[in-house]
Amino acid sequence: MKINVVKNVLDANNRIARDNRELFDAKKIYVINLMSSPGAGKTTLVEKTILALKDTYRIAVIEGDIQDTCDAERVAKLGIPVVQINTGGACHIDSTMVRESLASFNLDETDFLIIENVGNLVCPAEFNVGENAKAMLLSVPEGADKPSKYPLIFHESSVMIINKTDLLPYVDFDVARAKKSARVINPDLTIYEVSCKTGDGLTSWFEWLAGQIESFRQPKK
Amino acid sequence: MKINVVKNVLDANNRIARDNRELFDAKKIYVINLMSSPGAGKTTLVEKTILALKDTYRIAVIEGDIQDTCDAERVAKLGIPVVQINTGGACHIDSTMVRESLASFNLDETDFLIIENVGNLVCPAEFNVGENAKAMLLSVPEGADKPSKYPLIFHESSVMIINKTDLLPYVDFDVARAKKSARVINPDLTIYEVSCKTGDGLTSWFEWLAGQIESFRQPKK
Repeated sequence: MKINVVKNVLDANNRIARDNRELFDAKKIYVINLMSSPGAGKTTLVEKTILALKDTYRIAVIEGDIQDTCDAERVAKLGIPVVQINTGGACHIDSTMVRESLASFNLDETDFLIIENVGNLVCPAEFNVGENAKAMLLSVPEGADKPSKYPLIFHESSVMIINKTDLLPYVDFDVARAKKSARVINPDLTIYEVSCKTGDGLTSWFEWLAGQIESFRQPKK
Repeated sequence: MKINVVKNVLDANNRIARDNRELFDAKKIYVINLMSSPGAGKTTLVEKTILALKDTYRIAVIEGDIQDTCDAERVAKLGIPVVQINTGGACHIDSTMVRESLASFNLDETDFLIIENVGNLVCPAEFNVGENAKAMLLSVPEGADKPSKYPLIFHESSVMIINKTDLLPYVDFDVARAKKSARVINPDLTIYEVSCKTGDGLTSWFEWLAGQIESFRQPKK
């Protein structure tokens, strides 16, 4: 019975996600759904991405957290429209939460929407929100065994960003093993190795994103 | 409507959790429910705890993962009875999963049961499984902002173990801030600072556990 409940929730979520997708297509908004464990560096990646791309694209951000607004405040400081979703008890953002957030943005003046999900390596991967692509961070201190233990998020993501490479000298993290086991689950996974702290490797991620946005959008206005 | 569904699931879970608790009381088994983000060091802590306490107490372990048996294999190598729960899609262990695992143990020859939950800072905190206490790890690379963003797990835990202190020189982690914000949520929280890698600080954790077990158990047989 519990399984049926979960299924109904997911079906309902997917219906709203399709509505969101139609709206994003109509408005020519490229949407990324960014996921990771707590503390893997999502917000820092969002900040660096904004700084790299804000002169080229009109960016908006949805921040998802159980409670608190500190991530949204970090983004707002960069002059970017941002909505904070406080999920209450929920461990993920769903399509309805995204739907309700959209009224806060001027969608006609948005090219690129970043949705930073709740820090969780499990449930967010189950809930489509109408995104063009899911991207995930795996931070070096978490260990290289995560793909085999949390396969769905690696399966659903288009990109895996291995973050905190500056800590590689101090932890036991086998980069080759992490990449290999992630690609067993998802052979098409694009992988970048970065340090959001030092900036190492981020250019490839920015270029990938810009390429995705360019191939998605048509000239606007 | 979705909220009602979650509520029913939690009510049902709590009923089974109480049944588990009655059984553990009857068998004089002290039970700890160990929670954290993915990769915070739960299994390493379990290994070190087994090595420290196995000559004093008869230990058993339940390992929870979405899939995979690598954590259970690590525990089995120490000669400890272990059951691996593979939750499938579920992001937490619930009381029914624990109930079904118990048939695999000789409960009359168990003093101390360690339940290692799925790596997740959100949902496991909502699901009682019949434990005496919840303990959580917060690893240094995750950042000191976690208590304000994931309050429930800090509220529900009796102990917070700040792990990976060996990485403090290499990351921005304010120990005082983490402790202070955790204690705003839970003033009674017992906090230890440890490195499971080097062993630093673990003795206090072992002593706390032994004290809990001693005050709980009556002479057996």
